[in-house]
Amino acid sequence: MAYIELPEGLPGIRGPMAFRPETAQPLNDLAEALLRSENSLTRGERELIATYVSHLNDCFFCQNAHGGLAQHYLACDMKFIDGVKENFQHADIPEKIKALLTIAGSVQKSGKEVTEAQVEHARSLGATDKEIHDTVLIAASFCMFNRYVDGLGTSAPLDREFYIKRAPKRAEEGYSGYDPYQ
Amino acid sequence: MAYIELPEGLPGIRGPMAFRPETAQPLNDLAEALLRSENSLTRGERELIATYVSHLNDCFFCQNAHGGLAQHYLACDMKFIDGVKENFQHADIPEKIKALLTIAGSVQKSGKEVTEAQVEHARSLGATDKEIHDTVLIAASFCMFNRYVDGLGTSAPLDREFYIKRAPKRAEEGYSGYDPYQ
Repeated sequence: MAYIELPEGLPGIRGPMAFRPETAQPLNDLAEALLRSENSLTRGERELIATYVSHLNDCFFCQNAHGGLAQHYLACDMKFIDGVKENFQHADIPEKIKALLTIAGSVQKSGKEVTEAQVEHARSLGATDKEIHDTVLIAASFCMFNRYVDGLGTSAPLDREFYIKRAPKRAEEGYSGYDPYQ
Repeated sequence: MAYIELPEGLPGIRGPMAFRPETAQPLNDLAEALLRSENSLTRGERELIATYVSHLNDCFFCQNAHGGLAQHYLACDMKFIDGVKENFQHADIPEKIKALLTIAGSVQKSGKEVTEAQVEHARSLGATDKEIHDTVLIAASFCMFNRYVDGLGTSAPLDREFYIKRAPKRAEEGYSGYDPYQ
């Protein structure tokens, strides 16, 4: 039971979004701009950053909803996603993405944890200013989304396959026109 | 010097917002919906929640920019704002706002820190579901804004009067049409 009365049968962020469409719209527009719009980081890479930060914040709904999307875009299995969450340095991902995940991990603790050395390392591996900017804002925004979902005590399906099955449809629809009732 | 090349002379969040208008728009739309739109919480009360969370996250720019706005709306002095930041239980504010600040303080740590007892206490003092929802999302969103500002290593004027002087103009203009160059 969530802490406030939310429309029934909508797990995770969908309940609060249906409860308050005035804030849902800019939240979804932000997700669309960060995770889905044209970018030199692939959609899979950006969803992976979102998944990793949601894992660090221990948000079950977000790490599985976005983990499912990352898995869909990257055409990998759940074991690969879990490997990135547990130890991305050992995962088979580009070194640039590892450097960006390091920055994202700092942001999750505090903005002040990001260091010039972390940013320079990412840049030396080819990260652009826009990619660094977007990594910081994706990580920061999931510190918001995760707190929004858990701070209202929402519930979420425990079967991780639920999220994986929904991912292709979610990938196609995108965020901006998102209908929390669907 | 910020970690990425931002338009010059724009302190705090204004640099990243000028750098990336595609994400600035939903961020400002979110701030407008949460902090400035019609609400049973006053604008001053909502800016106070934003200020308190920014203080907990030690974000100098945000706690002063929004502290200046809270001071403007509440027609109080800086000492009053600082008193709320340091110990709101002793401040001359309604008990309902103290209960909402307690929830905001939990959200700042983690969404999972919010308890049913905190929410019930706020409700017993007259807080509505919408007020509780908005408190959680204001607190969560400032966990994003603070990380965005500090995670990119932006700079900010150290003179706190700078923010107080800007507040009346900022209050009048609002967030949605915000021009970071002004």
